Amino acid sequence: MASKYADLNPMLQPKSVAIIGASSNPDKVGHVIMQNYINVGYSGRLYPVNIKADGPILGFKSYKSVLDIKEKIDLAVIAVPAPVVPAVLDECGRAKVRTAVVVSGGFAEIGETALQNELAAVAHKYSMPVLGPNCLGVMDLKSRIDTLFLPTFKIDKPQIGGVSFVSQSGAVGSVVLDLISHEGFGLAKFISYGNAAVIDEADILNYLANDVDTKVIIFYLEGVKRGKEFIEVARKATLKKPVIIIKGGTTEEGSKAVHSHTASLAGSAEAYHAVFEQFGFIEAEDLDDLLYFAKIFDTQPLTTKNRIAVITNGGGIGVLATDALYHNSLRMAEMSKESERKLRKAMPPIVNVRLPLDLAGDADDKRFGIAIETLSEDPNVDAIMALVLFQTPGADSSVVAELIKYGTTGKKPLVVVSPGGSYTAAHKIMIESAGVPVYDSPNSAARSLAALISYSVYLENAAHSNGNKNNGQDKETH
Amino acid sequence: MASKYADLNPMLQPKSVAIIGASSNPDKVGHVIMQNYINVGYSGRLYPVNIKADGPILGFKSYKSVLDIKEKIDLAVIAVPAPVVPAVLDECGRAKVRTAVVVSGGFAEIGETALQNELAAVAHKYSMPVLGPNCLGVMDLKSRIDTLFLPTFKIDKPQIGGVSFVSQSGAVGSVVLDLISHEGFGLAKFISYGNAAVIDEADILNYLANDVDTKVIIFYLEGVKRGKEFIEVARKATLKKPVIIIKGGTTEEGSKAVHSHTASLAGSAEAYHAVFEQFGFIEAEDLDDLLYFAKIFDTQPLTTKNRIAVITNGGGIGVLATDALYHNSLRMAEMSKESERKLRKAMPPIVNVRLPLDLAGDADDKRFGIAIETLSEDPNVDAIMALVLFQTPGADSSVVAELIKYGTTGKKPLVVVSPGGSYTAAHKIMIESAGVPVYDSPNSAARSLAALISYSVYLENAAHSNGNKNNGQDKETH
Repeated sequence: MASKYADLNPMLQPKSVAIIGASSNPDKVGHVIMQNYINVGYSGRLYPVNIKADGPILGFKSYKSVLDIKEKIDLAVIAVPAPVVPAVLDECGRAKVRTAVVVSGGFAEIGETALQNELAAVAHKYSMPVLGPNCLGVMDLKSRIDTLFLPTFKIDKPQIGGVSFVSQSGAVGSVVLDLISHEGFGLAKFISYGNAAVIDEADILNYLANDVDTKVIIFYLEGVKRGKEFIEVARKATLKKPVIIIKGGTTEEGSKAVHSHTASLAGSAEAYHAVFEQFGFIEAEDLDDLLYFAKIFDTQPLTTKNRIAVITNGGGIGVLATDALYHNSLRMAEMSKESERKLRKAMPPIVNVRLPLDLAGDADDKRFGIAIETLSEDPNVDAIMALVLFQTPGADSSVVAELIKYGTTGKKPLVVVSPGGSYTAAHKIMIESAGVPVYDSPNSAARSLAALISYSVYLENAAHSNGNKNNGQDKETH
Repeated sequence: MASKYADLNPMLQPKSVAIIGASSNPDKVGHVIMQNYINVGYSGRLYPVNIKADGPILGFKSYKSVLDIKEKIDLAVIAVPAPVVPAVLDECGRAKVRTAVVVSGGFAEIGETALQNELAAVAHKYSMPVLGPNCLGVMDLKSRIDTLFLPTFKIDKPQIGGVSFVSQSGAVGSVVLDLISHEGFGLAKFISYGNAAVIDEADILNYLANDVDTKVIIFYLEGVKRGKEFIEVARKATLKKPVIIIKGGTTEEGSKAVHSHTASLAGSAEAYHAVFEQFGFIEAEDLDDLLYFAKIFDTQPLTTKNRIAVITNGGGIGVLATDALYHNSLRMAEMSKESERKLRKAMPPIVNVRLPLDLAGDADDKRFGIAIETLSEDPNVDAIMALVLFQTPGADSSVVAELIKYGTTGKKPLVVVSPGGSYTAAHKIMIESAGVPVYDSPNSAARSLAALISYSVYLENAAHSNGNKNNGQDKETH
């Protein structure tokens, strides 16, 4: 079995949580976590635990040990000094706590491998899924679970949505959470798993692949503990939903940095790249890519073909978009004779009816609307890239309405490119909130379309090679 | 002579401007331009000209022809229908107008080559530097010149600074202006030259290379009219100041799109790339690069060596930065024994003293300060990349103070990487306003450092190969 710890629901949707190391002292991590639970409006039962406790903590009755709590505990969040973690975890086992998150650091990442092994042994003894140590823990916006111990005013809050995010690194985790908050898509679950002493990449990927709230998975990975099991899980996961992955340590030096960070073995970049490609992962090269790719997969339909119709209200940016297509193995569509006739009739003489279609600097909602409608119906066009420069006289929120109208039909992928300042930003939010991805440059849009197509082709090939067998695939690929 | 029209000062710093096509009708381009001049506080003399004028325009006395103005005119901005442009320009010539900007479109870009040739012939007859046609014109923040006819509320205003921006395309021009407004650096001059019927790339590059207000040049180029002259100008310009260039039409299809846009011949991508490299241009691959590169060249000293010290308060992002260095032909510095001793003494045990230097999630201004100070003085370190995650508990504006302290000494390049949301954005502005470039990802910072180093090496090689000859170089390169 690839995953010994398949059910992480008690960890992400617990009905009762014990916070071990909870404290009335605002400087303690246990205090921050406890306060977080209160702030996000967690509706389950909350039990602060502290060996030195002698009264309520943040208004909640406190306990000296998890063994003193008479209720059933779904999740223990452990924020105590590393040396006492194994003993505390053992108490959790005896108290039949179902899952635990160890946020404490001070294990393999600083050479304390024996202590980490001890922790793992306790977890396995009770067959308890334990996340960490040395991690930020978990966040589930639906169940209002948040074990993060970072200053809340420093990180913007993501909205609820269909993208789940897994990060070995807490730092990358907090940064990406902060960045996601400014994107049009929302978050389902966040899992930061640190040293992966017990629950590892394979367990988490397996869980999210089967999670109904998760539509797209994004993954920051430094290394894989159990290669064979990870591949087994991945093969099924990528057939179910898109898994976007960024690998830390893709160079020899980066790989050394990984080892001193989470004590993972990064493995050779080539080996990972080959595995990612073979098993249908969508590989991101930079943090930006994670977000770029997440938003196209979250909102746009799949397509296996790469003929892109570029529509623009600025000639120069149309040129850059054309270059960007070909740099990313896409190509400019050639519109059908019918589209040509239709557009020639509808457009003023200044518009040269060919792709890239330059609607001119005074293009308004009508021109954009007719162009997108016509090309959406054109059998020679597989996807549309609309470059909408809101700096021009004709572009305003009436153009936004057209983009939303055609970008949310689910028929053909539509991506928008709108680089700019504050006026543009206001319109970008409108478009993204409605479910159409907006990019800051033609290149990032082209990269994202290329990722969408490449994944679609992977699914199609997988479906063909499996003939009529259905190995977990629940997605229409034709 | 490479440039027949070397002196563009009367165009960019005119004491008197005639706006031909000025109008009381707010829908007319001539009205928008006239209004712009008034809004930006142009302090020279302003003369609206309109053949149908029968009273003041926007409060200024109007003229039926430029010939009726009895004063000396430095610049005529021409916004009249294409067919009458040559005649209007001829009147300007007879009136001894010194320079002209033709914003009107309707020339070679829509096949009207004869009309454009006629325009050029008139300009040459009077040896008058004429910009355009089919362009946005010019902007000079110092002399408060602004011929742009775009809605001002849609484009944010750049601050005054040392970066000049040249764009063949008006659309790319307006977008980049809008983007620049959100960067820490400011604008000196903006020149959008459209079809380049008279003044071309070579003339503009030559002018800006000699312009005292311009420290860094960024250039969006679709094609070059006079290859030999352009190269002759470029060879000198790049020895004087950094010239960052993005080429539209670097693919066969993109090159076709260029032709239908400004009727330029784009030439082969390889040929351009070879020229850019040989003559010391800094080549940008995307719009983002233009801004990334501009800010490092605007603020940081040159260095020919590539040993980078990465300092971070987040392990995972340190891993990504390490990868980014090696992907961009840079390498991680190895700190001297002395630095090691110093840092070991100053840092808490949790900090593993090696590069990338992970100062841990609770790193504060003291830890960052000592680390940057020590590595700044280390002879084994050529530049510093500080990854400051403002999501962490210890990072606040006291860290900003340390970054500014060491990032503005002019001794070694310092770049900051701080991805994030609104809390981060507030700190990013503080850092950039003080003259230290901040990037959103390790990769964009590494790309920019690589560009800085590559240009520094170019200058050093050029200095060596020229021995003691001084061919216009006024920069210290050793």
